[in-house]
Amino acid sequence: MAAMENPPPRGFPDAEYEARLDRAHRAMSEAGLDALLLTTEADIAYLSGFRTQFWQSPTRPWYLVVPKAGKPVAVIPEIGAACMARGWVEDIRTWPSPHPTDDGVSLLYATLEKCTVPGGKIGVPMARETHLRMPVNAFDALRHALTFADASAVMRDLRMVKSPLEIAKIAYVCGRVSDSFDRAPDLFAAGQPDTESFRAFKIECLRQGVDDVSYLVGGAGPGGYGDIISPPSGRPLQRGDVLILDTGCVYDGYFSDFDRNFAIGHADDAAKRAYDTVYRATEAGLAAARPGATCADLFHAMQSVLEAGGARGNAVGRLGHGLGGELTEPPSHAPFDETVLTAGMVVTLEPGMEFAPGRNMVHEENIVIRDDGPELLSRRAAPELPVLD
Amino acid sequence: MAAMENPPPRGFPDAEYEARLDRAHRAMSEAGLDALLLTTEADIAYLSGFRTQFWQSPTRPWYLVVPKAGKPVAVIPEIGAACMARGWVEDIRTWPSPHPTDDGVSLLYATLEKCTVPGGKIGVPMARETHLRMPVNAFDALRHALTFADASAVMRDLRMVKSPLEIAKIAYVCGRVSDSFDRAPDLFAAGQPDTESFRAFKIECLRQGVDDVSYLVGGAGPGGYGDIISPPSGRPLQRGDVLILDTGCVYDGYFSDFDRNFAIGHADDAAKRAYDTVYRATEAGLAAARPGATCADLFHAMQSVLEAGGARGNAVGRLGHGLGGELTEPPSHAPFDETVLTAGMVVTLEPGMEFAPGRNMVHEENIVIRDDGPELLSRRAAPELPVLD
Repeated sequence: MAAMENPPPRGFPDAEYEARLDRAHRAMSEAGLDALLLTTEADIAYLSGFRTQFWQSPTRPWYLVVPKAGKPVAVIPEIGAACMARGWVEDIRTWPSPHPTDDGVSLLYATLEKCTVPGGKIGVPMARETHLRMPVNAFDALRHALTFADASAVMRDLRMVKSPLEIAKIAYVCGRVSDSFDRAPDLFAAGQPDTESFRAFKIECLRQGVDDVSYLVGGAGPGGYGDIISPPSGRPLQRGDVLILDTGCVYDGYFSDFDRNFAIGHADDAAKRAYDTVYRATEAGLAAARPGATCADLFHAMQSVLEAGGARGNAVGRLGHGLGGELTEPPSHAPFDETVLTAGMVVTLEPGMEFAPGRNMVHEENIVIRDDGPELLSRRAAPELPVLD
Repeated sequence: MAAMENPPPRGFPDAEYEARLDRAHRAMSEAGLDALLLTTEADIAYLSGFRTQFWQSPTRPWYLVVPKAGKPVAVIPEIGAACMARGWVEDIRTWPSPHPTDDGVSLLYATLEKCTVPGGKIGVPMARETHLRMPVNAFDALRHALTFADASAVMRDLRMVKSPLEIAKIAYVCGRVSDSFDRAPDLFAAGQPDTESFRAFKIECLRQGVDDVSYLVGGAGPGGYGDIISPPSGRPLQRGDVLILDTGCVYDGYFSDFDRNFAIGHADDAAKRAYDTVYRATEAGLAAARPGATCADLFHAMQSVLEAGGARGNAVGRLGHGLGGELTEPPSHAPFDETVLTAGMVVTLEPGMEFAPGRNMVHEENIVIRDDGPELLSRRAAPELPVLD
């Protein structure tokens, strides 16, 4: 095992959850909500501390009910009671799941019904970038008897600004991934099937101290890669390839999300120029990433450099995004997103472009917004395209 | 890297998708559905071959529309077009995502509207064990103009019996995880924080050839563990602990899901007896797992051994389940599930019990049902609780 650089303690003190709940209650009051119903891993973890990879199993739904006063109530399958009890929630109501005819719906209804009054509304995230992790039929049954309203903005605003303890976890995982990318010369070489490149990198990240390599995509191709979200194909790396690896690693429930590019043996001039353009676009993003700027400002700062550098297009649809308990979170660095940056937001800067037909170059860094500007959480990429011999 | 034992080729030939689509069309016809709308990773992969870890990003919805005649149509964010084109789908319709006001809904509506007629129904999985991975507001908008019906049974029945090529992928990943568990004496030891036990095991699974360790839960405690879905706590393993690791590893989109138990230094008699009981319950499950038996039969065969062995209870709610493109799939080995086993089904046998207050023992094996009985895909657990010195 590699030496661990002081991993932050796991979990959060109760005061962290109390502060989150206090902010939730204020937002719910402003939105006129009697309660929140949360169903997804990141939302539930945020207000309960419930951490398990059991979310990988789609069989059972999990519910967290946040009344407008008092602590959250967990309404969950029996199998999760002991794990939930390790967190901050005290009121844990369970049912034997899976159940053929009533997989928690009547227990959830009874819990919600006590939180609201006729004419009252229960908030559920319903808008863009959300989904409800429960059966449609179960939600329809609740809707017959209760009134729901969109709470996407409540949860988005609550989670967007990170606490110092959250930032420490993200900084830690970003550091370990930076260490892993530093070992690229030992990990990747011409002739290696890209499946083995991915495997070697996953093992290195684990050795460096991440909990999980939940996300690793990338590509390699002569002089540039065609797309950046695919799994490896088995094709051996070849001299002249540009290899990109984009990874979201996790430490105690918090993600990194950044990439690095490497030329295998040799880099052609077009790839070097594209790398330089995207590097400078990131610099422009760093210069613009200050409290008071909007995400649209960040987009334009980066996009102007990309366009001057000959960008043909970008299928990603934005030039970065929020980061935290999920790999991608609001906001989006896009022309339409007028979210104002404030201290404590953790975001990616992800300028990318197609610089020749079928050849792309994408950079990404992770930063936290501080009062006086951005602080890098990922170690800054090399200013010139690294060539691996 | 460990030597790879002939990994099966990645992906599937077109004939596999054609056969799946043919069965889907027949099931849709029987259910009176004009089209299917699919939104989740496993359902979309099953009928398109679309493989990417980009599902980790919750930002963008992905849609696959299966008309009652002809091939599926992908309605997806631009960022996924190249990756989708590597699969079997030819008609790929994209929009620039994220989009502030119309994140694919009008394109999806236009696609669905062409597939149906007034009075016609579009199938969506809506029942137990499903969710819709799209914003509630977006689905509500579609529902104003189109009629949806539950297609849970269509997708369940379609995916439940595995093809030889699917079974080969599951067998491969089960084999690599079996190899990894065989290395337990080199990986785990008293004094090791359980976080490091988990890390060592994840690295070993990757070295043995799995693509990802998507799921690793477990626990350790004196004479037995308290729950089986928690992440590691950091507590060092101690002499007298029973350690369980339960993992779902992935190869080319297909899961293993089984566990193994180890005593650290010493096993007490109660733990040995519990291990023996649960081992024999698995044997009873293997004896019962033949075509024509129901999942309820399997449950009772295993449960009777557990009860005779002093089981106090079981919070898991069932004694095994289906396995394939997801960690857990229908059916459930539970008293209520009358699904009849047929050749080609891949299931887990997962008898478990609380044998003393706060002390549990759970075993799990992965099998495929053949005409003449079960074939083990995981290498059978040791008949006595292994003690690691």
